[in-house]
Amino acid sequence: MKNIVITGACGQIAYSLIFSLIQGFLIKTKFNLKLLDITPMLPQLEGLKMEIEDTASPLVNHVTLTDDPQAAFKEGDYFFFLGAFPRGPGMERRDLLEKNSQIFIKQGEALNLAAPGAKVLVVGNPCNTNAYILHKKLKRKDILITSMSMLDHLRAQHFLASLYKVAVENIENIIIWGNHSKSLFVDTHYASLKEDNLYSLLKADHLEAKVQEHTQKRGEMVIKARGKSSAASAANAALEHMKALIKPSNQFFSCGIYSANNPYGIDKDLFFSMPCIINASGNLEIVGHLDISSYREHLEPSIKELQEERHVVLGLL
Amino acid sequence: MKNIVITGACGQIAYSLIFSLIQGFLIKTKFNLKLLDITPMLPQLEGLKMEIEDTASPLVNHVTLTDDPQAAFKEGDYFFFLGAFPRGPGMERRDLLEKNSQIFIKQGEALNLAAPGAKVLVVGNPCNTNAYILHKKLKRKDILITSMSMLDHLRAQHFLASLYKVAVENIENIIIWGNHSKSLFVDTHYASLKEDNLYSLLKADHLEAKVQEHTQKRGEMVIKARGKSSAASAANAALEHMKALIKPSNQFFSCGIYSANNPYGIDKDLFFSMPCIINASGNLEIVGHLDISSYREHLEPSIKELQEERHVVLGLL
Repeated sequence: MKNIVITGACGQIAYSLIFSLIQGFLIKTKFNLKLLDITPMLPQLEGLKMEIEDTASPLVNHVTLTDDPQAAFKEGDYFFFLGAFPRGPGMERRDLLEKNSQIFIKQGEALNLAAPGAKVLVVGNPCNTNAYILHKKLKRKDILITSMSMLDHLRAQHFLASLYKVAVENIENIIIWGNHSKSLFVDTHYASLKEDNLYSLLKADHLEAKVQEHTQKRGEMVIKARGKSSAASAANAALEHMKALIKPSNQFFSCGIYSANNPYGIDKDLFFSMPCIINASGNLEIVGHLDISSYREHLEPSIKELQEERHVVLGLL
Repeated sequence: MKNIVITGACGQIAYSLIFSLIQGFLIKTKFNLKLLDITPMLPQLEGLKMEIEDTASPLVNHVTLTDDPQAAFKEGDYFFFLGAFPRGPGMERRDLLEKNSQIFIKQGEALNLAAPGAKVLVVGNPCNTNAYILHKKLKRKDILITSMSMLDHLRAQHFLASLYKVAVENIENIIIWGNHSKSLFVDTHYASLKEDNLYSLLKADHLEAKVQEHTQKRGEMVIKARGKSSAASAANAALEHMKALIKPSNQFFSCGIYSANNPYGIDKDLFFSMPCIINASGNLEIVGHLDISSYREHLEPSIKELQEERHVVLGLL
């Protein structure tokens, strides 16, 4: 039976994600839920457990509530790292990285207790660098750590479909490159709209910049309208990401991954979003055959940003 | 293509329910979403629409945002009435009924615009009496109005499973009778735990009272622990309720229904939770063959309570 681990379990993203899990959106066999949050949240976590119970879902076998990463992570198969220290008003980027380093160093050590072949998704921001910290603390090679760019991917996909007034499923193989931040690059050079190359369409219509802008600023637009940051759409993207990790497919999906084996000349010690597929053996592969030389420069802002973040956290590890 | 209508679309229950819908938990074919809330919530509703778009779900065809019940309800197939006037501190029951009457009278009139054979679920409390108001304003006979006792049903089901340490799917055919309030009655006389009669087990173990108490007080327990009322579990129950309405099955489910045709001597002008099934033609039937004479008295508190609520609202219609 699979163990699904969720950190930041009292947060808004978890509140969406958990009930989708219970309703069978990720796997349709019984599983255990292992929910982690900080000590002061444990009473609220009890309330969450009550609501989980009150679904009477046949998929939920057992629910563990804990403030101890070791207890939560032991034998975990699917990990959703939703929890992170939020950026407060007046907080410097450096402070944020330090606060999150404290959390993710401890969690990275505990991740060594995971089940063989565990799959890990980091959503809590800065998600690429938080994933990097986990990676540095993990001694095992059989665990796949990824960070989320699926929300950016889906935002771009919907926007492209709406621009051309087609159903979303007609947009295929877009790529989000880089950091989950404003430095991300939406790549449509190898994407299609039905039979057409999407990049050629956008270029002819002078819409390239609009797609970048929409995807980079969408998070802010949601906050402005809702008064709260994206939660349900982030949870949905996290589940779509984990579904993509589980199911062999030749469709590209965008996924932050350790860059050691990248063939695109990207710094080999970063978590960087790249086009990925899951091969027939169920293993993740970076799509490596693309010629990106004509627009490779658009990856530089993310590389630089992630190098700076790495510089801060390497001093803390 | 089905039109799914949701009132109180900016609320917490809607925020859970909508994304489960998008993920295919109710139907797996394309649908339109028609989202209604009061005028001041329209800007927030725009933010919700952004998040809906950002799932890039192939199931969502079109999203309508409106503050006009007529626009929202026209051609609607599945209705989730989640919105209601919340009980504030120091508010009398009579005030609450009056406020909600204003909302549901207008919405009941608009419901006459629904698609043929529409199915309606009222979740917003007091849900039985709110459903009663809709019923009184509806001139058509082809629309099925129901109110929710599924959350109580699932709460009781999980509790019974946990008492006997069995998986939830081993508990079948429990019944919630009456009002969605503390006056509800959990009936296990015709329920089973695997091969055993559940009532006999509970009686032997002196656990009957515990099951009633748990189910009646669970909502309060969740609020106490979470600091907020049940939202995700209510959304889940609403979807399970609508799924039950759509799919023919001989399994009992608990459903608030207009009592005109009940064979149990219940006042024939109330919305009252009773055991229901969906027959092979897809129509709802009250399970009518049960001998409840030995415990019929337990239905009286709900009958009395609902008669009192009716007395207030009849003066307002």
